[in-house]
Amino acid sequence: MVQIGIVGASGYSGAELLRLLSMRADVSISRVVAGASAGKRVDEVYPAFSRLSDHSFEAFDPEQLEGLDVVFVALPSGEGMRVVPQLMDRVDRIIDLGGDFRLADVGLYEKFYGHKHVATELLGKAVYGLSELNKVQIASACLVANPGCYPTSALLPLLPVLKAGIVSTRGIVINSLSGISGAGRSASVEMSFAEVNENIRAYKVGNHQHIPEIQSVLEQATGEKIGLSFVPHLVPLTRGIYTTIHAELATSCSAEDILSVYSDFYADAPFVRLRQGIPQIKDVTYSNFCDIGFAVEPRTNQLIVMSTIDNLVKGAAGQAIQNMNIMLGLPEETGLLGKELQHV
Amino acid sequence: MVQIGIVGASGYSGAELLRLLSMRADVSISRVVAGASAGKRVDEVYPAFSRLSDHSFEAFDPEQLEGLDVVFVALPSGEGMRVVPQLMDRVDRIIDLGGDFRLADVGLYEKFYGHKHVATELLGKAVYGLSELNKVQIASACLVANPGCYPTSALLPLLPVLKAGIVSTRGIVINSLSGISGAGRSASVEMSFAEVNENIRAYKVGNHQHIPEIQSVLEQATGEKIGLSFVPHLVPLTRGIYTTIHAELATSCSAEDILSVYSDFYADAPFVRLRQGIPQIKDVTYSNFCDIGFAVEPRTNQLIVMSTIDNLVKGAAGQAIQNMNIMLGLPEETGLLGKELQHV
Amino acid sequence: MVQIGIVGASGYSGAELLRLLSMRADVSISRVVAGASAGKRVDEVYPAFSRLSDHSFEAFDPEQLEGLDVVFVALPSGEGMRVVPQLMDRVDRIIDLGGDFRLADVGLYEKFYGHKHVATELLGKAVYGLSELNKVQIASACLVANPGCYPTSALLPLLPVLKAGIVSTRGIVINSLSGISGAGRSASVEMSFAEVNENIRAYKVGNHQHIPEIQSVLEQATGEKIGLSFVPHLVPLTRGIYTTIHAELATSCSAEDILSVYSDFYADAPFVRLRQGIPQIKDVTYSNFCDIGFAVEPRTNQLIVMSTIDNLVKGAAGQAIQNMNIMLGLPEETGLLGKELQHV
Amino acid sequence: MVQIGIVGASGYSGAELLRLLSMRADVSISRVVAGASAGKRVDEVYPAFSRLSDHSFEAFDPEQLEGLDVVFVALPSGEGMRVVPQLMDRVDRIIDLGGDFRLADVGLYEKFYGHKHVATELLGKAVYGLSELNKVQIASACLVANPGCYPTSALLPLLPVLKAGIVSTRGIVINSLSGISGAGRSASVEMSFAEVNENIRAYKVGNHQHIPEIQSVLEQATGEKIGLSFVPHLVPLTRGIYTTIHAELATSCSAEDILSVYSDFYADAPFVRLRQGIPQIKDVTYSNFCDIGFAVEPRTNQLIVMSTIDNLVKGAAGQAIQNMNIMLGLPEETGLLGKELQHV
Repeated sequence: MVQIGIVGASGYSGAELLRLLSMRADVSISRVVAGASAGKRVDEVYPAFSRLSDHSFEAFDPEQLEGLDVVFVALPSGEGMRVVPQLMDRVDRIIDLGGDFRLADVGLYEKFYGHKHVATELLGKAVYGLSELNKVQIASACLVANPGCYPTSALLPLLPVLKAGIVSTRGIVINSLSGISGAGRSASVEMSFAEVNENIRAYKVGNHQHIPEIQSVLEQATGEKIGLSFVPHLVPLTRGIYTTIHAELATSCSAEDILSVYSDFYADAPFVRLRQGIPQIKDVTYSNFCDIGFAVEPRTNQLIVMSTIDNLVKGAAGQAIQNMNIMLGLPEETGLLGKELQHV
Repeated sequence: MVQIGIVGASGYSGAELLRLLSMRADVSISRVVAGASAGKRVDEVYPAFSRLSDHSFEAFDPEQLEGLDVVFVALPSGEGMRVVPQLMDRVDRIIDLGGDFRLADVGLYEKFYGHKHVATELLGKAVYGLSELNKVQIASACLVANPGCYPTSALLPLLPVLKAGIVSTRGIVINSLSGISGAGRSASVEMSFAEVNENIRAYKVGNHQHIPEIQSVLEQATGEKIGLSFVPHLVPLTRGIYTTIHAELATSCSAEDILSVYSDFYADAPFVRLRQGIPQIKDVTYSNFCDIGFAVEPRTNQLIVMSTIDNLVKGAAGQAIQNMNIMLGLPEETGLLGKELQHV
Repeated sequence: MVQIGIVGASGYSGAELLRLLSMRADVSISRVVAGASAGKRVDEVYPAFSRLSDHSFEAFDPEQLEGLDVVFVALPSGEGMRVVPQLMDRVDRIIDLGGDFRLADVGLYEKFYGHKHVATELLGKAVYGLSELNKVQIASACLVANPGCYPTSALLPLLPVLKAGIVSTRGIVINSLSGISGAGRSASVEMSFAEVNENIRAYKVGNHQHIPEIQSVLEQATGEKIGLSFVPHLVPLTRGIYTTIHAELATSCSAEDILSVYSDFYADAPFVRLRQGIPQIKDVTYSNFCDIGFAVEPRTNQLIVMSTIDNLVKGAAGQAIQNMNIMLGLPEETGLLGKELQHV
Repeated sequence: MVQIGIVGASGYSGAELLRLLSMRADVSISRVVAGASAGKRVDEVYPAFSRLSDHSFEAFDPEQLEGLDVVFVALPSGEGMRVVPQLMDRVDRIIDLGGDFRLADVGLYEKFYGHKHVATELLGKAVYGLSELNKVQIASACLVANPGCYPTSALLPLLPVLKAGIVSTRGIVINSLSGISGAGRSASVEMSFAEVNENIRAYKVGNHQHIPEIQSVLEQATGEKIGLSFVPHLVPLTRGIYTTIHAELATSCSAEDILSVYSDFYADAPFVRLRQGIPQIKDVTYSNFCDIGFAVEPRTNQLIVMSTIDNLVKGAAGQAIQNMNIMLGLPEETGLLGKELQHV
């Protein structure tokens, strides 16, 4: 039985880890850490877990996590880097869902996250956990930096066509629309229902911390300099990210050509579904799927690609579990491809 | 030109007062007070007001309000009772949108509001500002206690049939569903979009502070003891209250009889509309109307009445302005019946 | 391997049956019938099922269903009664999710449903499938009439206190708030987003077809005449029913007394959860749970009970599967209590 | 008193015309035409209009409209071209809110609208009614083609910078997010609440009929060939369009330079507001404003511009009235800049 710990279990990503992991017969959730809720039962904070979880939140104590097979760290960026170093010698497999170990370049990190990095010695050791890209490295990693939600939704549609040289490496435009759970579980006027409902707004235009994440992964994967612009928007729904990408076609190629590039790239990827038409968020909610659809626009010589994910599943907890499966040598879809997550 | 002040102008009710009053040619908004936003322009806090309001928020200073024709106090309950006494000698007409002066009984106030009342000397002096009930007293009042949103939605459908003796004074059941703006503009996890969306919950069952307000107004109007239960629910929309009331028929009477009781009672009420069918919230949003529909259920000998209001207009700022009009001797619909508020 | 057929599989309840049943290793979905979509793959109509279901919709042909272990009929009321008689000799276990076999009294049926009943010979043969009430009879039934969504949400909180004689059998008031998926998957201006969003309305006041269903089940269970009023409301969310019930206390009893009545009644019920506080919809969405909370209001001598269900799960497909489990002699929570359905 | 007719008054744009025009003291709505609702009172179809409109819908009869000062045609594209020719000799000023007279090129029309044009003789006679662009021509026009909602939201931010030569004429990327009222008032499964809520999807990628409209207006205004891609998305809110545009900077220029280009261009435009920060939809809902904000992204040499409008006001009925004002020689903001439309 695989012994698991979750640090930061009372946020939305942590709760989603609990939901997804507590279904499984082959894993045991040993420790559920959430400082602010320490001492409370999980179902006091989340009544939905009544009869589904007997766990109680406890305070963070690295000694208590020693020897666990896997520890998920689902803390806000800036907090993970204080916790992870204390776990490195105690736990064989750590999966950090925050942003602290996704960028190898400390300068980029400090510029975009706006605070100092305090565990720079670990930056080179983390494997970027985009399961479809780095499966081999993930399998033997000690520390996985689970991708951000927006990067997941942008990288999966971009990697195949960039690596195939089908689209230009410059002038890529990424527009993403996110449900509000992506902002986490916190109190603010800005995220209150009366402000978000019947409203849309872009934010962090030109300076979102996921920009260097997307760019550096693409540059590493292609070996080329990539020029891209990314604009995130908040839209009034709870879960889901819709990403629409414009990229200039670098070669003359048909829709069939492009479809075969995607099909080949994702031939063994259980969670990437290529759509003939246009994807929609409701087809992926509560699932670990990323749906991808595209259109070629000859008039402008552009490839337009659209992707959808559930930001809390493929964009956070689901992908983290997919990575855990890979690290443990299990089929990557274990407990995930599961029709158990699907709804209509 | 009527000179007006608004104290507590940065909450939703205050902003709604600004919206409605800034349309009028016959009034001038002289002072806009909001402690937390003092020094900021109105359109910095609410960009929607750009080009529509040149006002700036200022700190509360009773001296600055001296001599104004009307001052609206749109502060949370518990704060109004600290401000109103300082205005009583300085301003001829005060309209308090909070709950501090609605209950004549200080014991009830302290039990349901959970804190001491510090201006008990004014409790007997305030006129309850349900415009359709107390028009004459409002006309000569110095201090008007503007009704709560739920009480407005419950009293308008109940008063005619209770005063006519058509329904029993006991066993009245009131269920209300409210949009989230009713909870005010504040930061809390509970009111965040991700918690409210796709959710419904009742709250303060059996102990909501509007229970004694509804009951005491009905008892005073009928001269009888009234037995009623009230359950408020939060539903995922921004504006609007839907109230459904069950009351036992005390006499045998037809739908026509009941319709004529309502028609007579509201013959001169410009903002109460009797519906042949079932009312819906979207017909009253952004308006000062209260729509009322009813059904007689012979099987159970019950009258079922439904009402809809916009909680920020008829349930707060609109009714306050209706009261101001009455106090100033203007037609009560001035600036309100206005098709200017209507949308589809 | 249990062989299953679903007739009417392209509506929301049918799709939910597919979602829940396709997770199970112990059942096989043999036939998926949907006249209007016959010939199409399930994932053409519901792309969410891509990689989760290989089924195709087919036209209704009773011969093709012959010998299946269980057939679910998820057709609108009025259509089930045309299909079920053709299956009675061919299939051992039929579960009808529509309303055609819930009322034993054909007169009541025709009055409230507004059309003639064409299979009256079966009315006496159907067992009402409220799993928590009729488990023994369901176990040996050939035809189960799966309860309506509103009745499920009203009966579960009412049965224990009525059977215990704690509340009066007269003057019961039931207000229910339903998400829009309850209206089924169909094209109408009334159910379009722009009409439903930011809106609430009651409907079918005094004449909803679930009134006689609730009443007759309560009367049969208690042996007494029951007087109740039921008002359903449409609110802008997709899934979930919130039901608030007022009933007069018939005896003097404390909250503890009432809690123990509920606890005893539901001691063996895996899907009924008693809440200490007030239930909310989001705790039961996508699950088969019914959450129940209550408050005693001494001021009015009323018991106020609130319940929440997911209308498509415990209010339709989930309860149907619970009944199937009982009919097959399986633990009733098989594939349902499943943490697999839970989300936060 | 200006005499007005509205043809197609029962759709959302028509009702919005009614709402906005019925507030005005200087115009009289003489005829309200809606074939499908002919004979019904306006407030039967839209109960919100009770006490605000005494009009009844009537069938289309060009004789009855003869001599009116202004007729608005708010019919779906394809129907306007059948009605307008019958009015040309009878009415001095016609404003068509549909798409039939926006494109001068009949080939483009038939390709993108998918049906034949039956009034090609009028194509050259219509003035494109983007008030901020064509004010002089609108003033003397007999037939105004009111712009589409998406084009309004894209043209207002693009025109100043393209005309100033600040951005490249090629590779412009326009992503728009629209509320559902933009799809009109009609019955379809696709637009039903349960399908739209908690969902997002792009549609008509690469072939939306507003593509040639945006492009031809820009090409005529700049005298240059324009290369642009436009992707519309449906998001779960009722009103509002959010448009985000990426365009490559053609010259080196600072944010101040760009701000002054916009400020100069819109110096006399009462409805265009330049935002220092990022615009949001809720600031323009129910108003005729278009809010514009922008960011310069030196890293990619891109200008990112965002605009917001209410699709039913500035995107339809409001702009149509603005055009009427211009045609009648009135201040263009008459009845529109009006604080009367504003809410928070």
